[in-house]
Amino acid sequence: MTPLLQKLIHSFQFLPGIGEKTAQRFVHHIFGHQKHLAQGFAETLLEAIEKIKHCQRCQNLSEDDLCQICASSERDESILCIVEHPSNVSIFESTQSYDGKYFVLHGVLSPINGVGPQDLGIGKLDILLKQHPIKEVLIATSSKVEGEATAYYLYEYLNDKVAKITRPAHGLPIGGSLDYIDGQTLTRALRGRQEMVD
Amino acid sequence: MTPLLQKLIHSFQFLPGIGEKTAQRFVHHIFGHQKHLAQGFAETLLEAIEKIKHCQRCQNLSEDDLCQICASSERDESILCIVEHPSNVSIFESTQSYDGKYFVLHGVLSPINGVGPQDLGIGKLDILLKQHPIKEVLIATSSKVEGEATAYYLYEYLNDKVAKITRPAHGLPIGGSLDYIDGQTLTRALRGRQEMVD
Ligand SMILES: [Zn+2]
Ligand SMILES: [Zn+2]
Repeated sequence: MTPLLQKLIHSFQFLPGIGEKTAQRFVHHIFGHQKHLAQGFAETLLEAIEKIKHCQRCQNLSEDDLCQICASSERDESILCIVEHPSNVSIFESTQSYDGKYFVLHGVLSPINGVGPQDLGIGKLDILLKQHPIKEVLIATSSKVEGEATAYYLYEYLNDKVAKITRPAHGLPIGGSLDYIDGQTLTRALRGRQEMVD
Repeated sequence: MTPLLQKLIHSFQFLPGIGEKTAQRFVHHIFGHQKHLAQGFAETLLEAIEKIKHCQRCQNLSEDDLCQICASSERDESILCIVEHPSNVSIFESTQSYDGKYFVLHGVLSPINGVGPQDLGIGKLDILLKQHPIKEVLIATSSKVEGEATAYYLYEYLNDKVAKITRPAHGLPIGGSLDYIDGQTLTRALRGRQEMVD
């Protein structure tokens, strides 16, 4: 095991769930027969790191200043859906039952981890609400404790700035992550969404 | 999900055991908060792909033409241990009970997968035996079916070229991979190694 391979095994472990044994297995796989594929992978990763940025309007991952959804003139400008992660946008899109716009927080409020409103870009929502004819904000953070707390923070923050604030209907499993919900359940939860009131 | 991110998710899946869901999780992790670590990782991977080659003598992974073990004058030149994978060398070294040289096959004979003697560099063993004062070849392929078949092929191939051919002693679990053996078991198996005879 050369110093360079040891460094590579160490650096593989930034990936979630990857420990030393798995990293070793990856390295032996690569230098067994897969150098060519590994090179293509590493080059694609560097290209993505260079080109992928946050959409200036909605913060979703994008290769351009504005993502395809924000740039589209065919989406309903009157409704804005706030989600935790880019993967949530993919799931909403796959249901084909939502044609509004999005705002991606890239996380939830978490005082214990030092994540505050400014880390999630919540200040940008002000500008969005002033510049676009948004009539409804649908807060689709998860129903976990921190997701709920973030939803209520957003509700307080947005309450006097927009006509209607909603949460997806019951139908989402309590305590679950949005990543593991089937499209049908999510479609029902969207159709039955409830207005948030004091 | 942009085309570039889709390409990245696809290209992650060359790693063993990584499917689409896990690749998506890796990508969301990277573009959530880990771009900096991901960049260091990708650069280390490209550096390793460029610099890591097979040692000209033993085929083990090396940053130089000759690996550190082949280049060392303090190792016993009279014994050569043939292993399947670079990881096997690491395990042998960790026991500190072997101070000879190695030869790394990077696989086993597998007619069904089109892996023949030339793919494992077995022809190079001829040159090694002529150029170095090797008195014993210790064939440490695994005790799985293909490892055993490779050991017997090597035995037939080397029988008239070297004084003594051995296999590690019983003590290795039957049917197991060398990667999961503790050092103590391997030390015992090395001390009790048996000469192969017709
Ligand atoms: Zn956008
Ligand atoms: Zn070597």
